[in-house]
Amino acid sequence: MDTFKTILTGLGNIGRTLLELLVADSERFALRYGFQLRIIGVADSTGVAFDPDGLDLPAIIDCKRRRLGVRVLPTFRSDLDPINLARTVDYDLLLEATPTNLRDGQPALDIVRAALQRGKAAVLASKGPLVLAFAELAALSDWADDLSPYSVRPPLRFSGAVGGALPTINVGLRDLAGARIERAELVVNSTTQVILEQMAIGADFSTALAEAQRQGIVEPDPSLDVDGWDAAGKLVIFANAVLRQPTTLTDVNIRGIREVTAEELAAAWSAGGRISLVACADRQTDGRYVLSVTPTRLAADHPLARLSRGEMGLVIYSDTAGRSTLSSLEDGPLGTCQAMLRDVIDIRHRLRCAKG
Amino acid sequence: MDTFKTILTGLGNIGRTLLELLVADSERFALRYGFQLRIIGVADSTGVAFDPDGLDLPAIIDCKRRRLGVRVLPTFRSDLDPINLARTVDYDLLLEATPTNLRDGQPALDIVRAALQRGKAAVLASKGPLVLAFAELAALSDWADDLSPYSVRPPLRFSGAVGGALPTINVGLRDLAGARIERAELVVNSTTQVILEQMAIGADFSTALAEAQRQGIVEPDPSLDVDGWDAAGKLVIFANAVLRQPTTLTDVNIRGIREVTAEELAAAWSAGGRISLVACADRQTDGRYVLSVTPTRLAADHPLARLSRGEMGLVIYSDTAGRSTLSSLEDGPLGTCQAMLRDVIDIRHRLRCAKG
Repeated sequence: MDTFKTILTGLGNIGRTLLELLVADSERFALRYGFQLRIIGVADSTGVAFDPDGLDLPAIIDCKRRRLGVRVLPTFRSDLDPINLARTVDYDLLLEATPTNLRDGQPALDIVRAALQRGKAAVLASKGPLVLAFAELAALSDWADDLSPYSVRPPLRFSGAVGGALPTINVGLRDLAGARIERAELVVNSTTQVILEQMAIGADFSTALAEAQRQGIVEPDPSLDVDGWDAAGKLVIFANAVLRQPTTLTDVNIRGIREVTAEELAAAWSAGGRISLVACADRQTDGRYVLSVTPTRLAADHPLARLSRGEMGLVIYSDTAGRSTLSSLEDGPLGTCQAMLRDVIDIRHRLRCAKG
Repeated sequence: MDTFKTILTGLGNIGRTLLELLVADSERFALRYGFQLRIIGVADSTGVAFDPDGLDLPAIIDCKRRRLGVRVLPTFRSDLDPINLARTVDYDLLLEATPTNLRDGQPALDIVRAALQRGKAAVLASKGPLVLAFAELAALSDWADDLSPYSVRPPLRFSGAVGGALPTINVGLRDLAGARIERAELVVNSTTQVILEQMAIGADFSTALAEAQRQGIVEPDPSLDVDGWDAAGKLVIFANAVLRQPTTLTDVNIRGIREVTAEELAAAWSAGGRISLVACADRQTDGRYVLSVTPTRLAADHPLARLSRGEMGLVIYSDTAGRSTLSSLEDGPLGTCQAMLRDVIDIRHRLRCAKG
């Protein structure tokens, strides 16, 4: 049985749900894939808990459920912070799930840098590092070798960063390998879907926003969703990783949903369609992709016109694969956790490990 | 530049379209992936053409377009047949695209066996070998090592065998890795979709079948589609590869579309839904999957209720990823060709090759 020493940074919804999943079904990976994760370090906003023999996961879950920090745990280490945890202790795998910060990507960016620079594998749910520093992280990881399994650089994966379990990156990169992507349309922000849906049936913007907050799906700062930054960030990651076009946020034409009128919504609705915030990459004749985030009217027959409440999706048009559509209806953070775990499974042959 | 010596068996729609694609865009793989395929042998029903320095692909395409066999070519080799081509010549990669034969899987089965037994990589579009001999082929290939990139066995890929470019196998296996699949519903037979669609708007079965034949999407023997064998074959492959349940055709409860009545179709239609031939895998409490192919009424809000004409799709329900939906609208055999090429790209690091 291979055992991978693992550190987990971020104990919000995603990190905590990940631990719950590992506890609830500790045999899942052992039986099917022949490995297990030994969580030896975790970090939240109060600091780091660390035990090289493996942490008490139920105790951590309990402490988070009671809205306490890891500093109340006997394994709390006042001499460690998330970044020097990644820089100094002995581990095989980093799971990074701190809240996305699109200003400077921290602390996730420094955490991931530290891991990759030491040759440690990294699996990200957080978007900040990828949006702000994709080229740097690619150069430090197996992305520099086009994900060759024989790369001497450590594996970097982030399939959960662009729509959770929705396999945007994986399908774009692997299932459309060999195809030339002409256009991609992503509906990957739940907040704006809910708001626009509410507005289409009569609510005004403020009421609709309050509903999305009540549902717990809105980022702490609603403007990230409403003004299109979250969708743009995901598009930036997609453009870098799948389209191989070096891209930052400034390359995206962003228009959020604040200007969408009740009349436009009613018109779309009565025609059997809807308005969604669509992140779009459109290939030009010179091979460059023009990137935009725009409230877009989807006709009744558009593949994404009938996404269910909370469902995310994308459509990719390519020269040889025609029209490829994916959608994902997930249960809160669980889908993102599944994405992180599939990434771990994907790279399992490449992780150094302690046998036994 | 890595050059992979390649043999292609089958020059029907898929084989010919594959050659056209390679000729039309010979730089596609070289530029993006750093390799090229040198087609050194091809086989059709008239025999084999072979040239270790690389065949004249435009000449082969032309001969197929004129409905001639490779026996008219100067590179025709009367001493070779498809099976001993796979058994004797020096190559790195087999592309197998002979017509699917669900009775005995031949000649594809012997061709693939020969390749794998010699340690050659094999990419299949044909379903027969996988439906009839999955366990044997898995044991001969990297499937025995759970697709580890470090397997000493040769790679075997067949992502195009279950819906062409629709990434059924890839998503089931990789993007849902770590998730427990509860239920999968596949709509992967175009013929029955077209027939049922025509019948829903008033045509009788015979007229509808004639329409599907006119569109060129029906197998030479329509009963394979109409009686559910094609869908069942794809489900068998899915069950073996993704669900890891040893399965043969006899394990599938098959009901074709011959008994579907105009009344049932009208009722589904007026409720905003439709009837499709659904191949279904349903997990039981003991962990086994019950497999069936059945004409199924899809409600208006079913993810596959609105597939476009010619569009294939599937829905997978799992414990951690929720509901995952994929669909693919492809241009004839081109999607299957793209699937074969993505498989080649997937295994490219593992192919022995002649440098230069």
